[in-house]
Amino acid sequence: TLDHSYSLSSGTTSAELLKKLNEQRDIIALMEVKMKEMKSTIRHLKVSESKLREEVRDRDRLLSKAVIRKKHGM
Amino acid sequence: TLDHSYSLSSGTTSAELLKKLNEQRDIIALMEVKMKEMKSTIRHLKVSESKLREEVRDRDRLLSKAVIRKKHGM
Repeated sequence: TLDHSYSLSSGTTSAELLKKLNEQRDIIALMEVKMKEMKSTIRHLKVSESKLREEVRDRDRLLSKAVIRKKHGM
Repeated sequence: TLDHSYSLSSGTTSAELLKKLNEQRDIIALMEVKMKEMKSTIRHLKVSESKLREEVRDRDRLLSKAVIRKKHGM
């Protein structure tokens, strides 16, 4: 496998390393914000899914009552 | 606002900067994997939500038919 580690062999200066370090820090901060948003989206979608499953169950109960009524001519 | 930028003032050596840089790179790689997983989860939940909405609609159609039948004594 390739080694993507940063190394000193390329003669990088401290100032350059520092610049890169701060760029990466900004990237990490942005990714953290994005991940928080995604977590919130997942939470909402799970709540929505659970409500919809309950709605399907409710309607199935009503439908089976309707079928029973029809069978017995009520 | 506070400035959380890394700076040379603390007398950090290039080797230390490099170590930190590689640590950050690993964190970014892990976060990218995590974000891909979350994107996939969101995609699946949205498909599931859309199917469930369709199931609710189907049952509502059947229920309104049952109500009409009952009204007309069919």
